[in-house]
Formats: sequence, C-alpha cells, structure tokens
Amino acid sequence: MEGKEEDVRLGANKFPERQPIGTAAQVPEDSKDYHDSPPAPLFDPSELGSWSFYRAGIAEFMATFLFLYITILTVMGVVKSPTKCSTVGIQGIAWAFGGMIFALVYCTAGISGGHINPAVTFGLLLARKLSLTRAVYYMIMQCLGAICGAGVVKGFQKGIYDGNGGGANVVAPGYTKGDGLGAEIVGTFILVYTVFSATDAKRNARDSHVPILAPLPIGFAVFLVHLATIPITGTGINPARSLGAAIIYNKSNAWNDHWIFWVGPFIGAALAAMYHQIVIRAIPFKS
Amino acid sequence: MEGKEEDVRLGANKFPERQPIGTAAQVPEDSKDYHDSPPAPLFDPSELGSWSFYRAGIAEFMATFLFLYITILTVMGVVKSPTKCSTVGIQGIAWAFGGMIFALVYCTAGISGGHINPAVTFGLLLARKLSLTRAVYYMIMQCLGAICGAGVVKGFQKGIYDGNGGGANVVAPGYTKGDGLGAEIVGTFILVYTVFSATDAKRNARDSHVPILAPLPIGFAVFLVHLATIPITGTGINPARSLGAAIIYNKSNAWNDHWIFWVGPFIGAALAAMYHQIVIRAIPFKS
Amino acid sequence: MEGKEEDVRLGANKFPERQPIGTAAQVPEDSKDYHDSPPAPLFDPSELGSWSFYRAGIAEFMATFLFLYITILTVMGVVKSPTKCSTVGIQGIAWAFGGMIFALVYCTAGISGGHINPAVTFGLLLARKLSLTRAVYYMIMQCLGAICGAGVVKGFQKGIYDGNGGGANVVAPGYTKGDGLGAEIVGTFILVYTVFSATDAKRNARDSHVPILAPLPIGFAVFLVHLATIPITGTGINPARSLGAAIIYNKSNAWNDHWIFWVGPFIGAALAAMYHQIVIRAIPFKS
Amino acid sequence: MEGKEEDVRLGANKFPERQPIGTAAQVPEDSKDYHDSPPAPLFDPSELGSWSFYRAGIAEFMATFLFLYITILTVMGVVKSPTKCSTVGIQGIAWAFGGMIFALVYCTAGISGGHINPAVTFGLLLARKLSLTRAVYYMIMQCLGAICGAGVVKGFQKGIYDGNGGGANVVAPGYTKGDGLGAEIVGTFILVYTVFSATDAKRNARDSHVPILAPLPIGFAVFLVHLATIPITGTGINPARSLGAAIIYNKSNAWNDHWIFWVGPFIGAALAAMYHQIVIRAIPFKS
Repeated sequence: MEGKEEDVRLGANKFPERQPIGTAAQVPEDSKDYHDSPPAPLFDPSELGSWSFYRAGIAEFMATFLFLYITILTVMGVVKSPTKCSTVGIQGIAWAFGGMIFALVYCTAGISGGHINPAVTFGLLLARKLSLTRAVYYMIMQCLGAICGAGVVKGFQKGIYDGNGGGANVVAPGYTKGDGLGAEIVGTFILVYTVFSATDAKRNARDSHVPILAPLPIGFAVFLVHLATIPITGTGINPARSLGAAIIYNKSNAWNDHWIFWVGPFIGAALAAMYHQIVIRAIPFKS
Repeated sequence: MEGKEEDVRLGANKFPERQPIGTAAQVPEDSKDYHDSPPAPLFDPSELGSWSFYRAGIAEFMATFLFLYITILTVMGVVKSPTKCSTVGIQGIAWAFGGMIFALVYCTAGISGGHINPAVTFGLLLARKLSLTRAVYYMIMQCLGAICGAGVVKGFQKGIYDGNGGGANVVAPGYTKGDGLGAEIVGTFILVYTVFSATDAKRNARDSHVPILAPLPIGFAVFLVHLATIPITGTGINPARSLGAAIIYNKSNAWNDHWIFWVGPFIGAALAAMYHQIVIRAIPFKS
Repeated sequence: MEGKEEDVRLGANKFPERQPIGTAAQVPEDSKDYHDSPPAPLFDPSELGSWSFYRAGIAEFMATFLFLYITILTVMGVVKSPTKCSTVGIQGIAWAFGGMIFALVYCTAGISGGHINPAVTFGLLLARKLSLTRAVYYMIMQCLGAICGAGVVKGFQKGIYDGNGGGANVVAPGYTKGDGLGAEIVGTFILVYTVFSATDAKRNARDSHVPILAPLPIGFAVFLVHLATIPITGTGINPARSLGAAIIYNKSNAWNDHWIFWVGPFIGAALAAMYHQIVIRAIPFKS
Repeated sequence: MEGKEEDVRLGANKFPERQPIGTAAQVPEDSKDYHDSPPAPLFDPSELGSWSFYRAGIAEFMATFLFLYITILTVMGVVKSPTKCSTVGIQGIAWAFGGMIFALVYCTAGISGGHINPAVTFGLLLARKLSLTRAVYYMIMQCLGAICGAGVVKGFQKGIYDGNGGGANVVAPGYTKGDGLGAEIVGTFILVYTVFSATDAKRNARDSHVPILAPLPIGFAVFLVHLATIPITGTGINPARSLGAAIIYNKSNAWNDHWIFWVGPFIGAALAAMYHQIVIRAIPFKS
C-alpha cells in the first residue's frame, strides 16, 4: 500500500481520488509522498525485548496519574465550594480535562503514542496500529496510573473527597442509563475520530497543519465533550479515568453505573475506527 | 494566472506588488512559489463518478451532526439551570461553537474542505472554488446533519428542550429584525473572510503561519462572533445550525425570524467573497 | 547588515553571540540564514504608486472596524446585564479583545503587516520598519475604522450604549491618573515587545516556533493585559480603540482622561522599540 | 552521543529503539537527524565575556517583572471584589499565570532560553543544560524581577494590596503543610517535565509538533496546575514568584509557609529531570 493515493473501487466502478477545496491548505496534489505502515501483528514477541516497550508503559502510567491528579483535584475544588462563582467553575473543569490531554499528548506522543485512555488504545488496536500485547499492557498501566492519581487527591482531604462524589462518573438524576450510554458513545466517537485524523499518514503528507497541531484538536475534543456532557454523566469517555475515581471513591452509586463508562467508550471508539477505515480511507474497497 | 505575483492595473496605472512590514513573517519575496487553482466549473459531471465526492458529503453530514449535538447540548445544560454560575456559562456556549468548528475543520479539511456551514459553501461557490453541483450537495448534507444532531439532543430530555427554546435562533427582545439581520451579516462576514484568508494559495506560499494554523483562526472567528452576538440573536452565522434547531424545536417564534438566519449569512458570505476577490486579490484589475 | 550573526562590541570589548539553552528549539547555530531589511526611508514616494499601499490601508480600516464592532458589542452585552453571571463576564471581554487581535493579525499580516493599533505602528516606525508616510496613513485609517465600528454598536441600542459608558476608556474610581498612565505604558510595552519578537528576522531564522505561531502570542498579550488592567482603565493600549469609543460616546468624563490613552500607549511602544533594538538586538553596539 | 538513536542496555540485555504508534506524527524513522549538545561545564569563564550572557539575564529580569506585574494585578482585581462574578474569576487568574508564561517563553526562548522560574533553571542545571554560573545568575535576576513586579502592583493601591493577601502563596486553611508541599512538588514536576519534552533534541528531530508548539504546552502546564491547586496553596511552582510577593507583602503568615515554595518546586524539578534523563532518555544505560 505504499506510494501514491490509490483509486477506490466500488463494485465495477473505479473512483479517482481528488483534492477537496475549502479550508485545506492547497498544495499541489503530487508534491508530497506518504506510506501507510503495515498492520501491526496481534502478538509481536520481539517488542517484549525492546526497552522502548517498557518505557512506553511507564509513560502511560505517569501520564494517566498526572491526568487524574490535576482533573480530580480541580473537580474537588469546584464541588466543595458553596458558591461556584468563587471557583474556576464547571468551565474550568472542562479546561482541566481538555488541557491536560493536550499537554500530555504533546509530552508522550513520541514515547508511547500518547493514548492516556483505554478507549483510544482500543480504537487504534481495531485499526491494527499496535499489537494486542501492547494494547493490553497500555490499558493496565493506564488504569493503575488513574487509581494512583485519584488516590493522591483523596489523600489531601479524605472527608471532602468522600462527601462530594469523589469525581466519580454517574448518570445524573433526570437522565436514563440509555441517555448516559449514548452520551458516552458519541463523546468517545468525537475523541477517537480526532485521534485518527491526527495520525493519518496520508493526511500528514497532504495537509500541513495536521502533523503540527495534532495534540491541540485532540485536547480540544476532550474539552468540548466535557462542556456538553458534564451535566449528563460528568463525562467519562475514558474508562481508566472512570475506574480510577470509582475505585478510590468506592461507593455503590458509582459502581452501579460503572459499566456504562466501559461499554460506551469502547463502542464509540469502535465506531470511530470503522468510520475512519471504511468511509474516510475506504480501505475495504481498495485493491 | 500561474507563477509570480502580478502587478495590479487600475486604469492606465500599474501598481507593483510589495511585501508589507509588521507582523508578517519576513521571508524573501521571491523564495516561494504558488499557483492559483483555475475557477471550478459550475457543473462538473466527472466529479459525480469520484468516490471522494460522496465521501466529502458524508464527512459534511457527520461534522454538522456532531457540531449541533455538542453545541445544542451545551446550550441546554446552561439554559435549564436556574443559576448560570453552576454551569459552563454563556462563555462556555461560545467556546462550544468555536471549539467544535476548530476541531471539525481540522478533521474534515482534507476530506471535504471543512465547510460545515452553507454560508461558507456559498462564499466559496461565489469565488468559484467549487462547482454548483458540489455546493448544493454539501448544503443538503449539512442541513440533514444539523437536523439529526438537534434531534438527538431533544431525544435526551424532550420537556427541557421544548421548554427552554431548543437552541433555536431568535431575535432577542429589545432588538429589531434589522438589528438581527445586521448582526448576522457582519458576523458571517468575519467568519467567511477568515476562511478566505486561510485558503488563499498566495498567502499560503508567503506567510508560514497561514497553512499551519488555518483551523485555529476559523474556530476563533466563530467563538468571537458568539461572544458578541449571543445577546442579540443567539448567533446563527450558519443556516444549517439555525435550520436544524428550528425544525426540531418547531414553534412559531423560531420560524417567524428564521429567514434572517439564511438571508443574513448569505449576504455576509457574499460580501466577504467580494472583499477578498476585489480588494485583497484585486482579481478584476489583473490582466 | 546581511549574513551571519555579528559579534556585539561594548567599548573595547567584543562579545561573541551564543545560542541560549532552555525552551528554545535547539537547532544547529549555523543551519539557517537570515537578513535584516534595511531601515525604511522616512518618505518613500514610490510606495504611493503601489496598489498594495492603498490595499493595506483598506485592510487596516476593515480590521479596526471589525475589532471595535465585536469588542464593544461584547462589552455592551456584559455591562447592560444586572447579573454578570448570565453574560460572558469580564473574562469574556478579555477574550474578545485578545481573540480578535489574534484572528485579525492572522488575516491581515500578509496584507498590511497587521498593526490594527496606532501604538504598534508607532513602535515599528521608531524601529524604521515602515515609512512615516505609511505610518500616518495607517493611523488615520485605524482611527476611522474604530469610529465606524463603535458607531455601528451604538446604532443597535442607543439608550443602552449611552447609559453604560459606551465602552470608552476611563480611569476607574480609586485610581489616580498616574496609575492609569502607568498601566497603559506597561500594558502597551508587553504588546509591542511581543510584536517585535514575532517579527524579528533573526529569530524567525533560528526558532522554528516564531514565524509559525506569531499571531497567537500577540493576541494572548492583548488578552493578558485586559485580564489585569480592565479594573483600572478598562484597558486601552490602542489609541484607535480608545478614540473610536470616546467619539461615539462623546461625554466629558471620557474626554477628560482621553490623553492618557494616547500618551501611555505611545510611551510604552517607544520603550518596547528601544528595549528590542538596544538590549535584544544591540544594534547601536554593532559595527 | 552524536548521530542515530542508540540501543538501550540493561544488564546483559540490549533493547533496540522503536518508533511508537498513536498520536505521534508518523515520519520514517531514519528521515531526520539530531545531535545532543554535550553537557554544559559547571563553570564556563568564557561565557562571562559574551554579551548574550548579560542580555539573557536582563531578559530573565524583564520577563519575571512582567510576569509578576500582570499576574498579581489580576489576582488583586479578583480578590478585592465582593462578588467574583463581576471579575475575571479564579479561572481568569489561572489564565493570567499560564498565558503570561506562554507569551514570555515565546518572547525570550531565543534570548535566554525562557526559564522565568528558578525551578526550571534548577531542573535544567541538573540535566547539565547550562553552567552553574549561569544558573545562579538567572535565579538572582528572576528574583529581582519578581520583587520589582510585585512592588509596582502594590504601588497602585497599597491598602488593597496589604488587605487582600498581596498575592503571596500560603497554605489554605484545612490543608496541612505536607499537603502544600506535595501539591508544589507534583505541580512543578508537571511544568518541568513539559519543559524537558519541549527541549529534547531527539524529539525535536522526530515529532514535527514539538519544536513548533513548544511555548504552548509549557504555558498550558502552568495554567492547569493553577486550576487544580489555587485552592490549596494559591499555586507557587515558581520560587521567584513566591519570593517577590512575600517580600513586598512582608507579613508573618506569608513568611511562615515560605520554605514550602522553595523546597517543593526544587524537589519537583529534580524529579522531573531524573524522570526525563533516566526513564525517557535512558542516558545511564547507554554506552
């Protein structure tokens, strides 16, 4: 699959590729080159002998630790205050989640790929961008990091943490579990689709803003989903984040809804992977 | 019209082009090259046989769907709350609109051109950047996406949606319809002028920040217009967004003002296209 | 002054130039080249025959018009509301000023240099980056644009405009005129110093982020000064913005303090030009 | 240590380096080259004869002066108001700190390396990125700049400054000194780790977004730590900022906790330097 853009074939028809017109930077179609990586093997024993494999796991642990630490601490600062006006507010919470993903993706993209989220890892696994071994390893490290991060926040003020929901994701009163599941599916779809757009080798070659800005729209996607769905579920779209807060908070109302924050993100990530591979890249229809 | 910058001719006078001084990155005038695309034909039958044509429409549908979903959900979260302090606030609504445009332009620029707005499509059509066929097709897909996005938000909480205006654009009490129309014209002018600046082949070649940052100022333009005109019309500057909310809300007060949110944005987009082609590029005065 | 970095001479001493270490991207010292433009002549009759000279003035008019329109409209939306919580708030006002400068510098940098502010024009004039003719022409166009922008805002709701200060800059109660002047001087210093850093040919050649991000820190500088000094003077740091609002508002309390918003920004811009030319570039000490 | 990536050796094992997959821009592994600078000497007499050495100190003084001026003035504007809704709010304070670091790093990165913080200088010293002479000189200039910046703010309104805490860092009621120390350690770790990621010669060569965006994630890191820890300590993570406010405020409650804002940031910076050199770069394990 190396070399130039291939035509797409649907049935007997062959559709040539064309450069769209609009907000894309208009570079000559044939001025740049790219090649897709081959699909990652499911099991790749050789990577177990690579230092960068272990380093990547440590980086995922550290990033998820710092992510939960900053975000849950910000949530606590807002919810414990009787008047939201003297805090950073709900919008500040959304900035904390989105901003941390921006900064952490920037810092870890070159080390581990900057997932910091089992749903992102799952989506990239479905697209065969990394091995199953690596995916499972990343998810375990992400969950451990999240538990530690939430634990440190509880360590600061145990009473306030337990008395204010502990930053755990639950479906808010007035919404059904189906609403919560839907919000998680669409929210994670937005995040994972942005990740795919940022890592697309073809677009990296063609649009000059794609490789440069990559961490920024990924962080913004997280910020935007929080703006919209904090009133519904508190916004998970990251099973490690939901698990970490749930384990440290550890009350039944957090556990009752907890499945939503695994099933929803994984469905959303799978849909985003399918959308990107089938509709955007048309991989099944290529020779 | 390929090759180097041409001189501008007004009557018998010939005006040489010069590089301005100030915040532009100062590269040697002749170090880079560019070429303008030829005007798109009104009808281009060949593109109907291209897979990327259909994919572009799907991408516009999906982007407008996600745009309405996130933004109208954010609006609902704010308006249903008795005290705005415990929500993301009006500023959060502005971030939702602007931030979504930033992220979606980033994701779809290389697929469909990243219009996500019939007014943008109309402006680019006037500048002959895309065919009439494609423009009509994009507008239909944008409107369908917007209707679906608003529909999903209503699906979460029908009573609250209908009881809080449904995110539909109306002229606020204390303002005339003329005020609303003016606000929409100037607001869309700002957006579409930014889009033209971001896609200008000449500037892409000369200013290093233009192709790289492109989605960011476009998103910011949407954010800024919302900061200013939410108190006047709720801010449309996107007929698909206004239509989607109006159809799903479907009450007479939304329909009474609805023409403003088509006429205003289309006038604003036409003025921006004229300003860019005549004043900035001086295309009518070139040989 | 073309070619490689020159050594700096102070008295009999010669100081070699070195690449600093820290947050700068570390490129090999000698991998890139740059050349300073020669100082602009005070009067350059030839530019009066250039179409791009007139176009630049139109672009400055248009940018300052849109700048005042969006920002003063945002101010009106906030001040007319009895409770700031149901508006975009003071922080939203700061975003409107900074964000507009970001978007407008992005759009006009390649056309006029993106000044949008007589203080910026004055600072660049002192550094001999543009001719006196062009500087005077820019300042006139900026002031005309600002008057029109504020006028349109007053046109929406005359009573509310006149009853809420019209967005005019005045020194707030509890502060002396000296405080206001000091705040304007330091604020404009921050803005103009950022502009100089963004347009420095030497740094453009060496730091990869300088030419790409240029409009972003310039916009942020405006945002930050507003965060700090809105409670003192409402923040001018732009004589055209202050003049436009004062003329349209036209009440004695706005006119009494008006000199502060010309003297302060011009002193601040002159200090920034001196700081950059003498300390940063050490131009007087070079052979 | 010049040339290509070396393999990492742990005991008898040799681990090859690999490019991670995910959000990193996927460039061919061997398409770019980089070289690490050699470790800086502890004492480098030759730099005392360089004009750029003195200029760098002036730039650090100026940057820290402007940093304290804008941020403490923003803090004063918020704390003196009876209702936070009519100010930029706590979130606005966080933006002031983070935004100033973004703008100042952008402006001074090419002059002094853009430290603006003794903890950053200390972390880079441990990684042997600058000489001890230069580090001590920078720290002194940073502290002097911070004292002057806070002094100017007090000069505006002495009574309000002294009556509202003067922007000095103290541990908030309800938190132990250990909590405050922990918050400073983790917060500074986040900042300094981001700085190391932004200045890593290896990553600059491989990830296209690293050198371009560098000042943005550094500023965001400061913003995010403020969102989370303003309720705990007011957020120091910068000993110069804490010292400047403490000296100008000069009351015993600020001095009692003052050691926390030196010990915490220095420990955090040291941990970040160790994490980057040992885990990320694996320097001790390389031949």
